[in-house]
Amino acid sequence: MSEKTWRLSPDRCFAAEPTQRAVARDLYAAVKDLPLIAPHGHVPPALLADPDARLGTPAELFIIPDHYILRMLYSQGVALEELGVPRRDGAAVETDHRRIWQRFAEHFHLFRATPTGLWLADELATLFGVEERLTGASAQRIYDHLEAQLARPEFTPRALLNRFGIEVLCTTDAATDPLDHHRKLHAEGLTHIRPTFRPDAVVNLDNPTWRTQIDALSAVSGVDVVDYASYVRALEQRRAAFKQLGALATDHAALTPYTARLSTHEADAIFQRALHGQADAADAVAFTGHMLMEMARMSIEDGLVMQLHVGSLRNHHDVLFTHFGPDMGADIPIATEWTRNLRPLLNAYGADPRFRLILFTLDESTYGRELAPLAGHYPAVRLGPPWWFFDSVNGMRRFFDRVIETAGLYNTAGFNDDTRAFASIPSRHDVWRRVSCDWLAGLVVQGMLAEDEAAEMAYECAYGLAKRAYCA
Amino acid sequence: MSEKTWRLSPDRCFAAEPTQRAVARDLYAAVKDLPLIAPHGHVPPALLADPDARLGTPAELFIIPDHYILRMLYSQGVALEELGVPRRDGAAVETDHRRIWQRFAEHFHLFRATPTGLWLADELATLFGVEERLTGASAQRIYDHLEAQLARPEFTPRALLNRFGIEVLCTTDAATDPLDHHRKLHAEGLTHIRPTFRPDAVVNLDNPTWRTQIDALSAVSGVDVVDYASYVRALEQRRAAFKQLGALATDHAALTPYTARLSTHEADAIFQRALHGQADAADAVAFTGHMLMEMARMSIEDGLVMQLHVGSLRNHHDVLFTHFGPDMGADIPIATEWTRNLRPLLNAYGADPRFRLILFTLDESTYGRELAPLAGHYPAVRLGPPWWFFDSVNGMRRFFDRVIETAGLYNTAGFNDDTRAFASIPSRHDVWRRVSCDWLAGLVVQGMLAEDEAAEMAYECAYGLAKRAYCA
Amino acid sequence: MSEKTWRLSPDRCFAAEPTQRAVARDLYAAVKDLPLIAPHGHVPPALLADPDARLGTPAELFIIPDHYILRMLYSQGVALEELGVPRRDGAAVETDHRRIWQRFAEHFHLFRATPTGLWLADELATLFGVEERLTGASAQRIYDHLEAQLARPEFTPRALLNRFGIEVLCTTDAATDPLDHHRKLHAEGLTHIRPTFRPDAVVNLDNPTWRTQIDALSAVSGVDVVDYASYVRALEQRRAAFKQLGALATDHAALTPYTARLSTHEADAIFQRALHGQADAADAVAFTGHMLMEMARMSIEDGLVMQLHVGSLRNHHDVLFTHFGPDMGADIPIATEWTRNLRPLLNAYGADPRFRLILFTLDESTYGRELAPLAGHYPAVRLGPPWWFFDSVNGMRRFFDRVIETAGLYNTAGFNDDTRAFASIPSRHDVWRRVSCDWLAGLVVQGMLAEDEAAEMAYECAYGLAKRAYCA
Repeated sequence: MSEKTWRLSPDRCFAAEPTQRAVARDLYAAVKDLPLIAPHGHVPPALLADPDARLGTPAELFIIPDHYILRMLYSQGVALEELGVPRRDGAAVETDHRRIWQRFAEHFHLFRATPTGLWLADELATLFGVEERLTGASAQRIYDHLEAQLARPEFTPRALLNRFGIEVLCTTDAATDPLDHHRKLHAEGLTHIRPTFRPDAVVNLDNPTWRTQIDALSAVSGVDVVDYASYVRALEQRRAAFKQLGALATDHAALTPYTARLSTHEADAIFQRALHGQADAADAVAFTGHMLMEMARMSIEDGLVMQLHVGSLRNHHDVLFTHFGPDMGADIPIATEWTRNLRPLLNAYGADPRFRLILFTLDESTYGRELAPLAGHYPAVRLGPPWWFFDSVNGMRRFFDRVIETAGLYNTAGFNDDTRAFASIPSRHDVWRRVSCDWLAGLVVQGMLAEDEAAEMAYECAYGLAKRAYCA
Repeated sequence: MSEKTWRLSPDRCFAAEPTQRAVARDLYAAVKDLPLIAPHGHVPPALLADPDARLGTPAELFIIPDHYILRMLYSQGVALEELGVPRRDGAAVETDHRRIWQRFAEHFHLFRATPTGLWLADELATLFGVEERLTGASAQRIYDHLEAQLARPEFTPRALLNRFGIEVLCTTDAATDPLDHHRKLHAEGLTHIRPTFRPDAVVNLDNPTWRTQIDALSAVSGVDVVDYASYVRALEQRRAAFKQLGALATDHAALTPYTARLSTHEADAIFQRALHGQADAADAVAFTGHMLMEMARMSIEDGLVMQLHVGSLRNHHDVLFTHFGPDMGADIPIATEWTRNLRPLLNAYGADPRFRLILFTLDESTYGRELAPLAGHYPAVRLGPPWWFFDSVNGMRRFFDRVIETAGLYNTAGFNDDTRAFASIPSRHDVWRRVSCDWLAGLVVQGMLAEDEAAEMAYECAYGLAKRAYCA
Repeated sequence: MSEKTWRLSPDRCFAAEPTQRAVARDLYAAVKDLPLIAPHGHVPPALLADPDARLGTPAELFIIPDHYILRMLYSQGVALEELGVPRRDGAAVETDHRRIWQRFAEHFHLFRATPTGLWLADELATLFGVEERLTGASAQRIYDHLEAQLARPEFTPRALLNRFGIEVLCTTDAATDPLDHHRKLHAEGLTHIRPTFRPDAVVNLDNPTWRTQIDALSAVSGVDVVDYASYVRALEQRRAAFKQLGALATDHAALTPYTARLSTHEADAIFQRALHGQADAADAVAFTGHMLMEMARMSIEDGLVMQLHVGSLRNHHDVLFTHFGPDMGADIPIATEWTRNLRPLLNAYGADPRFRLILFTLDESTYGRELAPLAGHYPAVRLGPPWWFFDSVNGMRRFFDRVIETAGLYNTAGFNDDTRAFASIPSRHDVWRRVSCDWLAGLVVQGMLAEDEAAEMAYECAYGLAKRAYCA
């Protein structure tokens, strides 16, 4: 059986209707090569700090670290061990990367009509020059091809960084991270790679390693954390250290957006209970709610943009977590209430011109009902792009259709790729640019926007909004 | 820089696909000039009662009283003071209406792809004959033009009332309103301007002015309200007074649609606590839930249609409320539960042929899940059109797509503009007529509706449904 | 007035855009005549067990037993008595089926733009060869025509079973059903008609007839149910009996998907309280949550696929229930939480390769937020097709748009018609096949899927997914 040639449509993600497609093409042509602003993601800074770093084997690049891939294969009965995912107990897993790749290729049809399928196609065909479709039959030929490409100097992370046209790339880093990689990058003048301050592990008292993290916080900050006051000082020290290495923002993940200020006395009492291993679930909720207020207060003082990601119930599958740890595709969203939960924080800080708060949801029913009305009122609020499962063609279309009429485009924060997979960055931005241009083209052909307005808005979607939201 | 001419597409809101557009055009041509039924809105009756009333300056007409405009400008950092919005404390605000207009014009791009932008374009271009796009550069020329137009006799409210082809216009009036304006209109024979009975301020015990409102109710009704029985008599008196001046309906706003009948004894006990300033939050919830039952009972007796608007958490932003009062764009929706909350009321009255209940939601996730199934069963229930943030092109499309398959078109109540902005009435109805015709055209070209059926349904959407829901 | 000819578009449910329509036509042509897999529905087995069974009068076939029809007519003021629906108290109802048909015909416009309207049109025109549209004027002529058709041997249930090309038809049967009809069908070699084990009436303690049902369970199973242990044995006996007659699956309806295992001691204590009429609401919730776990455990042992239908608040309208009983169109959905509720069951059994769990929701907001992420992770989970109110053109489109990007197509379970109306089966599958082909065509013309991939997926939607989900 002869394999199919892989020919990506130059018009992918564009409406079939010819007048809309023509406008979409024009809008897209003007923005497709703009520099990439990547203000939120999970690329490991080590990959860029070391000029000799390599992307690894095709299995290491595309499969083993990517929970989008793992979960889909797992859902159809492929064991994570067969995909080479290391077990916490050190039990044997597949080590033959060609066999891992073969399994992936044989299941590649599972990704049809998914964003992962769209990104993979673009990476393989556009970035790596693969010319036949990935199937069980073509798997080993394509592995050979990828291996050869990955050995070339054009495919080192540093080379790709330039080729991708990345203007800013923010990583996400624990509050306790010593930032050695970032220091190295900074010293080398790669100041467009920036850290982001993510303090969840030292803020959420129900984190099982919280106590250890506090010790690490003491060590890295040089502040001996013994009570709430020293804890706050240590956090402030870390924020300053992040800022010094170019940080633009903080990032906070919470199960709910509950916010409420505690008195210093209450905060300290909870903190002491936590230090002594005596904090309960209610303490954890109260403390996180308080610390979100406190982080907003600090943002006003130091100018770091505050990002809030809400609604993921992590590690839903206990056995899987026990065997493989977090980020295996078993984080499942829950419904989210924003209007009441965020009210204390917004009443305190939402109108402060020094404050910017970017909100991310996994509950699309809140787009039009809560988030767009909040962003369309509070000066501090911007809405982040569709997150995670919704970073997809339909997810983006729903975002535009439900958010913009109420919030306006200018209260959104453009795109971020949120990826761990460095090589997928251009593919992800490309989907966003295509979908946003197609959405604008739809408004033009329905007589609801002039073409010059649409062109300005396409530029905003591709570049301006993210730039202003994070770098202004 | 030469300013762009403002040329509204005659096909705006219509699909680009030519066969659908052709059908949409035909359907629209047959309904676009039908008289306007405006059964729910917030036009001040004083505007029409006084034959010499004027619409004011362009800033007074378009900006200062319109919370859609204010919230968007505020969300992007424009202070309400700069827009001439009066402060409760009497502190100075901008009084130069040309400067207010200039600020608005400089931010006009914020309204791109929003319904407000669509209405404004139509009002300025179609109603006022503005021929260049509104920008910072054209702002003062356009101000001159609008000022000249507004001075002409064709632009008095009374003249516009005729020009707009308004067959019925219902205002919304407090239960304590003496209805002097409506009495004047009635006496003049302008009987198509009708009051609507809105008793929230005397029903919701958590309204801070409730006690004062009860005194006003005593005064206006001539019933000395001293207990629950006299309270009910006073409300009945007011309903009769409204009805005498042409009222077709009542209107009720509640945070949730909770309904449950109290015994007369319980109702009186709560009422007595409220009179003595001792009612608590639970009392307020119970009393509102009871009074919704009671209002349904009265509707069955006097024939007034009952409207219920649910889900807006008013005055989310405390400081803004303190400085400027309500209706500044800081009312934010919450999730709503209809199935269980409305069950007592519907079990009691939902099958009574004398009763009509029109429901409005700010939680679109309930369209298909709860509201359409309820309307598709209970004879009394009709669904009101997309409300507030959802009175938009996409909001209407979602309404049609999610409601009609389950409820059927004939269990909906047509359109109402719900506006405070008198001059925007035709623009709002026009968007609805366009979107409904385009939706029907889509069904025709997908072979799911015959053209003659679509034509009948387009008439229903534009005129018949609202007429029958309120005036039958 | 001459009646309109009834000409169904061969392209119904297909996009108007010509390139998409062309692809949709091609995809549909290849799947439209595939055999029907009907793995879930409510066809009475008696209809097929008796070779002499007839479909009855047009009113008996189309109106009296169909709650989709009844609820819409009722919502517009037609009394169920006028439609011949028997009252529980034996009070007189309409018995003239021509008059019932006339009333239905006069209200037929109510079904415009509804799935019921689409199915009826297809049944009348395609299956019964009706050539004029149903209106008050044509009603009696069409009644004559239908009556003549129904008298012909080609219109017996057995004849239609063949004509429809049904490969598998599963009915839904109480745990206490003696399965006599199925035994007869089996004996005759009609083994493609299969029972489905539905134990709700003996599981849900708040079922008013629970105690009687337990006696029936004892009688039919031959196990004297006196405690929890004997209860479980009786259920296991029934599952085995169902399986012996070809059952592929079980079916469970619950208000919420709450699951949590009780200790045997706790389960028995609740069971004893229930036997003595002393179980309360909390007991009922706990017991159902436990029994769902237990049913999953049994499914792993006997291989029956487990179906779970969640979120319908049954018999919302008390008076209607009192007069006419259940299934009168007054079952109303509520919001559903899946992520936390299903966690215990999925942690226990969700990765077991012997287990398959098919989930059905009435809360579309959970499609992308909870269900697709769960199905995209747990190997046991498949998502059932749009259920009930959402078994409609737009409901299917939303399902595809919100589910597939995250779950992938291969974690869904294809279509089932879920109907009581035997004669509507082909019409319902036809709408699904049309809409799925049109959805795939949309992806092809937007460059997101190759045509050969789309063709494989169209086959999966029409046949393969359902076959594998239930029969593998």
